[in-house]
Amino acid sequence: MKHNIAIVGATGLVGQMVIKILEERGMSDNNFFFYSSGKSNTVILNGKEREVLPLTKKILKIKKLEFALFCTGEEVSKEYVKKLAKKGVIVIDFSSYYRKEYPLIIPEINLDQAKGNILCNPNCSTTAAVMALHSIHKMFGLKRIVYSTYQAVSGAGKAGLEDLQIDNVNNLKKFDSVIKNNIIPYIGEIDKDGYSHEENKMVFETKKILNDDKINITATCVRVPIENCHSISINFQTRAQATIAEIEEVLKKTEGVKVLNKPNCFPMPIDASGGDDVLVGRIRKDLSAINSFNMFVVSDNLRKGAAQNGVQILEGLIKKK
Amino acid sequence: MKHNIAIVGATGLVGQMVIKILEERGMSDNNFFFYSSGKSNTVILNGKEREVLPLTKKILKIKKLEFALFCTGEEVSKEYVKKLAKKGVIVIDFSSYYRKEYPLIIPEINLDQAKGNILCNPNCSTTAAVMALHSIHKMFGLKRIVYSTYQAVSGAGKAGLEDLQIDNVNNLKKFDSVIKNNIIPYIGEIDKDGYSHEENKMVFETKKILNDDKINITATCVRVPIENCHSISINFQTRAQATIAEIEEVLKKTEGVKVLNKPNCFPMPIDASGGDDVLVGRIRKDLSAINSFNMFVVSDNLRKGAAQNGVQILEGLIKKK
Repeated sequence: MKHNIAIVGATGLVGQMVIKILEERGMSDNNFFFYSSGKSNTVILNGKEREVLPLTKKILKIKKLEFALFCTGEEVSKEYVKKLAKKGVIVIDFSSYYRKEYPLIIPEINLDQAKGNILCNPNCSTTAAVMALHSIHKMFGLKRIVYSTYQAVSGAGKAGLEDLQIDNVNNLKKFDSVIKNNIIPYIGEIDKDGYSHEENKMVFETKKILNDDKINITATCVRVPIENCHSISINFQTRAQATIAEIEEVLKKTEGVKVLNKPNCFPMPIDASGGDDVLVGRIRKDLSAINSFNMFVVSDNLRKGAAQNGVQILEGLIKKK
Repeated sequence: MKHNIAIVGATGLVGQMVIKILEERGMSDNNFFFYSSGKSNTVILNGKEREVLPLTKKILKIKKLEFALFCTGEEVSKEYVKKLAKKGVIVIDFSSYYRKEYPLIIPEINLDQAKGNILCNPNCSTTAAVMALHSIHKMFGLKRIVYSTYQAVSGAGKAGLEDLQIDNVNNLKKFDSVIKNNIIPYIGEIDKDGYSHEENKMVFETKKILNDDKINITATCVRVPIENCHSISINFQTRAQATIAEIEEVLKKTEGVKVLNKPNCFPMPIDASGGDDVLVGRIRKDLSAINSFNMFVVSDNLRKGAAQNGVQILEGLIKKK
């Protein structure tokens, strides 16, 4: 049975990756409707050129549309997501616009919470971190988390990738500071407490996905000059005692996680890029604090951090039907 | 009065920076003896070409040698430093070889401890971190520190800089993994607990320079693909209560520290490179833990992290004489 699925933002970095992953997972024979916020365009699906329409209110009139994946920013989601949902379409929204109100889904963790017509794909760094943390939380309970991120420019879309080659601040398309040969220690707007939007997302979304408000979380989010994959240095404290062997065992059993935890074997962007797994390593007992640990997590931000997770949600919903 | 000073490792990245900083600080008219571990070579001092001798035991026979700066690795220091010190030469050692036994000096913090003939220049990341932490420690007392670093390839010398351009792992000169467009989440050998040499240095040296064994410290050290400047995401807890305004006030009064702590004003490698100051910003109350804070520190690892600090030690000792 073929499903009617709209892909909005089909020509962007994440939209393109959604199409690739639909093909990889054998889901590309459904009926697709492609949209982008720009001019008319085309995408390639199953080796064939397909038309991409400019996004207008006509999307609301597609007959028997079942699913819509919004691989777009907050503004586009704000305008269309609720209207489509009211018409009975199940929308998987990649933007952060509805994440406070609606379910935030990582299929390996909480597909059972995917109810209603608006489902949100979590923030890219949060997804990587929580993929590595959720089974530790289930087994030992998380008390505290300190995140420091190393985020690739692909997280800022095609313009971000282009900026990686640019030396002159006046020629930048996406960033406010040169990212080539530099590090930018903030992502998104800064709030009254000095926290960036990305940091606030990581704190809020981690608690929401782990369904535990009592975890004490703080984050520092940093852009680094690499094309793809987000890395996260995580210091965490558990409620119950745990050994490194137990932590490693739990992670090895976690679906979607690959443990690389030997002296000559570490998670690196170069190895995570293009892969489905979240890589976890450098797992160490924090010798300075009780029940505390350090670990390093790397994940493809365009795949598990965005497109792959969204397609997995779609896949899960189709299986449920 | 002219002093007799040997510069060992004069042709390396740090040695070259030592010469530059001696000129900048008006100290380049002393009598210098240049050595490198390689073949004969030359360096430029005050616009004139000067001979660099291959390092041999002849260095022990220089008459009235007062100071020697060892801008070299542990092996070279192991062979020569104690022998020179026994002959009455004051050695400023940039390697980590003697840091456990002998004073570890950052002139702004503990020049008063610069006694004896072997003085050590601390680790590059540690220097940046401690420059930002020492006056906070003095005022409020540090209870706990969690470091995550973002370290430039220049910390691995000229070969490290060359590796930044190399795509093929087989052509690398310094690193075991490609660093171009990648992140390498370890620096130095890994110990039985899973900690890297660099992480252990940061923990040990922070306690030693702050002269307080009771501070609980943990570190994750990561190499990032930028040429120059080390950055550190620091989460810290104070013993006494402090406000952001008080922390900022203390940092503004700290010699060698520049506070960049506004929503549109952050410390970045691009701004720290080539400068004397350690840049500190993103100072935030950690809303998840009592008396806890986050901040981001950036420093030129070749300057304050190495050459500049070593020359400042020399300068301090000459003034004392």
